[in-house]
Amino acid sequence: MSDSLRETIHATQEKLRLGPDRARATFRSRSALVEGFRSDVAVRDHALVVDEPPQLGGGDAGPNPIELLLAALGACQEITYKAYATALGITVRRVSVELEGEIDLRGFFGVDDTVRAGFDTIRGTVHLDADASPAQLAELKAMVDAHCPVLDMLSTPVPVALSLVDGDA
Amino acid sequence: MSDSLRETIHATQEKLRLGPDRARATFRSRSALVEGFRSDVAVRDHALVVDEPPQLGGGDAGPNPIELLLAALGACQEITYKAYATALGITVRRVSVELEGEIDLRGFFGVDDTVRAGFDTIRGTVHLDADASPAQLAELKAMVDAHCPVLDMLSTPVPVALSLVDGDA
Repeated sequence: MSDSLRETIHATQEKLRLGPDRARATFRSRSALVEGFRSDVAVRDHALVVDEPPQLGGGDAGPNPIELLLAALGACQEITYKAYATALGITVRRVSVELEGEIDLRGFFGVDDTVRAGFDTIRGTVHLDADASPAQLAELKAMVDAHCPVLDMLSTPVPVALSLVDGDA
Repeated sequence: MSDSLRETIHATQEKLRLGPDRARATFRSRSALVEGFRSDVAVRDHALVVDEPPQLGGGDAGPNPIELLLAALGACQEITYKAYATALGITVRRVSVELEGEIDLRGFFGVDDTVRAGFDTIRGTVHLDADASPAQLAELKAMVDAHCPVLDMLSTPVPVALSLVDGDA
């Protein structure tokens, strides 16, 4: 498994090095609010349900959007650890991530416009069970944190252009 | 439904105005890589599966982390439209969001360190079917974009502190 994953990674790196024009990719999501704060999301052929907990006015049919962002960061860290460890020849027995995000709800609720709407802090722990020395682990962490797409998007602003269209989709 | 949601929003705003110390909240996620690039995520009592598509070395058991981030942004926009429209007394018949994120995979794969790891552009359309004039819609969009938590986190860097622990969780 890991040997074939290592080959896949190296082959992809070589392909992208030789043909940078092949490096651009587009990912999509579509979603619609179906009841209250519940949103049904489609990503390719995958479906997920997003909702708010009762104390935020929702029906708790799924994680809320900021919990989903934590989920995206946790999984992205794990995948990036697995990919970079594999590329370096380090065997990963297990990788897991615990995250917490702190928010001041006065931001979202528009009660104080000096308070940001999102998390003001995210903290987390990555547990990595792998055959590596402390020096290799430190090098791996630096590589992962420099190449984790979701961490990148929380650290460096992403240009987001949203247009509002009046009427049904 | 909308009347009771409106009361919930106004009551929450009043509570947060009177007791800013009650405004802080913490959200959490836990996840673990279970096979290949597949991550099983737990958010409270909600479970979700994240994976990469085959062309990125995964088994396609779920959306990948950057698709999940788009899903989080889409649902967050919808919920924020619903909440602010409701607070303003505007009836929302339907709100849906289509998003696309553009990425240069040389960033994630470490092929060119001048290329960022995440999306370099996110574009999207919000379809809003509501009883509102064009001027009200423009005002609503400005309020939503100023108070949407996920959009905030993509626009203004979030301090993220991750520690790496050697060993199993």
